[in-house]
Amino acid sequence: MEDQLVKTSENQQKQPIRCKAAVCRKPGEPLIIEEIFVAPPMPREARIRIICTSLCHSDIIFWNMQGPPAIVPRILGHEAIGVVESVGEDVTELTKGDTVIPIFMADCEECIDCKSTKSNLCSKFPFEISPSMIRYDTSRFTDLNGEIIHHFLFVSSFSEYTVVDIANLLKIDPAVPPNRACLLSCGVSTGVGAAWKTANVEPGSTVAIFGLGCIGLAVAEGARLCGATRIIGVDIKPEKFEIGKKFGITDFVHAGECENKSVSQVIIEMTGGGADYCFECVGMASLVHEAYASCRKGWGKTIMLGVDKPGSKVSINSNDILFQGKTLMGSIFGGLKPKTDVPILFKRYMDKELNLDEFVTHEVKFKDINKAFDLLVKGECLRCVIWMDK
Amino acid sequence: MEDQLVKTSENQQKQPIRCKAAVCRKPGEPLIIEEIFVAPPMPREARIRIICTSLCHSDIIFWNMQGPPAIVPRILGHEAIGVVESVGEDVTELTKGDTVIPIFMADCEECIDCKSTKSNLCSKFPFEISPSMIRYDTSRFTDLNGEIIHHFLFVSSFSEYTVVDIANLLKIDPAVPPNRACLLSCGVSTGVGAAWKTANVEPGSTVAIFGLGCIGLAVAEGARLCGATRIIGVDIKPEKFEIGKKFGITDFVHAGECENKSVSQVIIEMTGGGADYCFECVGMASLVHEAYASCRKGWGKTIMLGVDKPGSKVSINSNDILFQGKTLMGSIFGGLKPKTDVPILFKRYMDKELNLDEFVTHEVKFKDINKAFDLLVKGECLRCVIWMDK
Repeated sequence: MEDQLVKTSENQQKQPIRCKAAVCRKPGEPLIIEEIFVAPPMPREARIRIICTSLCHSDIIFWNMQGPPAIVPRILGHEAIGVVESVGEDVTELTKGDTVIPIFMADCEECIDCKSTKSNLCSKFPFEISPSMIRYDTSRFTDLNGEIIHHFLFVSSFSEYTVVDIANLLKIDPAVPPNRACLLSCGVSTGVGAAWKTANVEPGSTVAIFGLGCIGLAVAEGARLCGATRIIGVDIKPEKFEIGKKFGITDFVHAGECENKSVSQVIIEMTGGGADYCFECVGMASLVHEAYASCRKGWGKTIMLGVDKPGSKVSINSNDILFQGKTLMGSIFGGLKPKTDVPILFKRYMDKELNLDEFVTHEVKFKDINKAFDLLVKGECLRCVIWMDK
Repeated sequence: MEDQLVKTSENQQKQPIRCKAAVCRKPGEPLIIEEIFVAPPMPREARIRIICTSLCHSDIIFWNMQGPPAIVPRILGHEAIGVVESVGEDVTELTKGDTVIPIFMADCEECIDCKSTKSNLCSKFPFEISPSMIRYDTSRFTDLNGEIIHHFLFVSSFSEYTVVDIANLLKIDPAVPPNRACLLSCGVSTGVGAAWKTANVEPGSTVAIFGLGCIGLAVAEGARLCGATRIIGVDIKPEKFEIGKKFGITDFVHAGECENKSVSQVIIEMTGGGADYCFECVGMASLVHEAYASCRKGWGKTIMLGVDKPGSKVSINSNDILFQGKTLMGSIFGGLKPKTDVPILFKRYMDKELNLDEFVTHEVKFKDINKAFDLLVKGECLRCVIWMDK
């Protein structure tokens, strides 16, 4: 069955493909690997055979979420690499056989935002938590009973085949190992980009990172590449320091064990005034306040990367904003423009500058995808790569 | 009496000077013009004969304030121009007869912040609401009963003579008309600097300004000088639009009269997505939220200039920070470095680029200083210049 699918013939290209997918049918319950139909791509879309995919915390969040914008049945997954199986009409950028990564942030290359160097928020296809394709607001997935299965982040990579809009696809060099390339689809790019593009970390500077998961460690990696000389990691788990050293973390603050001092007091003492850049990578609005307090008066920047619950608020004393010369920024996808900045990260990986290898702590077969969920939920992995053909 | 004081002899220089000052003895009550003693300058200080001074909202706020950090008796005033009467020991930068403006933000030229181009927050002499001199934490003023009179913002310009630290003094060209020069001591510099230095407004951009008092109009002037092509003024008083046009305001939003729309909705509609830069110049933390909502996704910057009550908080949805690519910054003294950036504003005034003239709507004699308070409290003036020798 699988082999037949891989050898897609030209005739099949305009037909639905029957293949396996891991479907989320109930929030928080194991994904069910079942056969589904993947419709042919519409104009400006491509159908992709997924090579491998990796699991990101956003998948976990939407897997666990009980109400909207979560929805079932849905195919999760958004960090991946694949090969173009067929393209819809009006696609000139890609052709069958091209190696691509999907990116949940669109880059239409036409709108004012995509043409600007200052924005990575495509205004033609704005980012949203949609159950559908970005251009047509419809699904390409049905189960064997004909019921619609919903998309996730315009990618839905936990399937042997998926359909992705051209605006969400980046063609890459097939020489990049797939179990590394998929990391640049979301998490690692987000962290590295936050240091490089959003914060624009200066050589010789001091950085503090709140939360040493994959995103936080990717911020460290980005800061290291930018030439930061001191990278302070903050986490409630002391074992994170050993992991962090592989990504350039030079100092560690054990949150919750600061001898009656706040984390910001400790960082201000360590650095003689505060870090030049502070990154909130946990997704706790209240922690943004602590990060803001930890950054240096006069020029400190605080960058928020973590996703907190809808409705949560970041609250800062107005006098602290006014009198301290600090900057507060958000960073989605690290401020990276998918089609111009991500290729630079690929080059830096191939040039052996960007460390991707250490992020991959586990690899599993597609049939064992629920093990990947267990590992990430328990905090036992950074990135678990899921191979579709194994 | 006054003439004798002006002709200060060398012998007098190390003696207290007896002169007139407008003293705030009870919060919110008219200042009392009385004779005081102004002690000689300590090392690294200068005693200044004030030529003229102008009234700023911060003076009003501390005049009205009932408790700390307000204190009585105090000599208010911090926008001024004067001539050096004498200098203390170890002063090489200034000499008797030099024309100077005081600036409440210190610039010691020695600390890491003053040497950095990124900060205007001197770390040797941090800004604070102090009742004393910045270097010694003592007063140079006594009344005729020997009671200490407190300083304000390290300037206290509502006096014929005052003592100011070298770190708070900028030597200027005596050719600048005094009733224009004093404006660059605080308010106009703050607004122009916020557009120029803090926001770094780009040519061709769109700016929205919340609150068209002196500071807001100075932001408009700064934005105009930076090449902004659309400058939207927001105020609850429609008559402000006519005034605003003199400073480059091109559009007006009458807050409170937006037909069931929020100001941000109106601005987003007017601009097709939001202003590139929004400036909060009223001093309402809640308005920062509206300004943030009014600025453009992808690259919008919101700059807070207004001073709200201590303890007031700026509260923004964490998802708005994360997903909208916006920046929030505070701006004190417009992000200007007193000794390197303010001279550029003086040059631009002398080159007839920077409009200072229109800010001066009233001028009074020193004996009528309480009229200036009345005018500003009633919102009937932008800047009222108070002449000491008239």
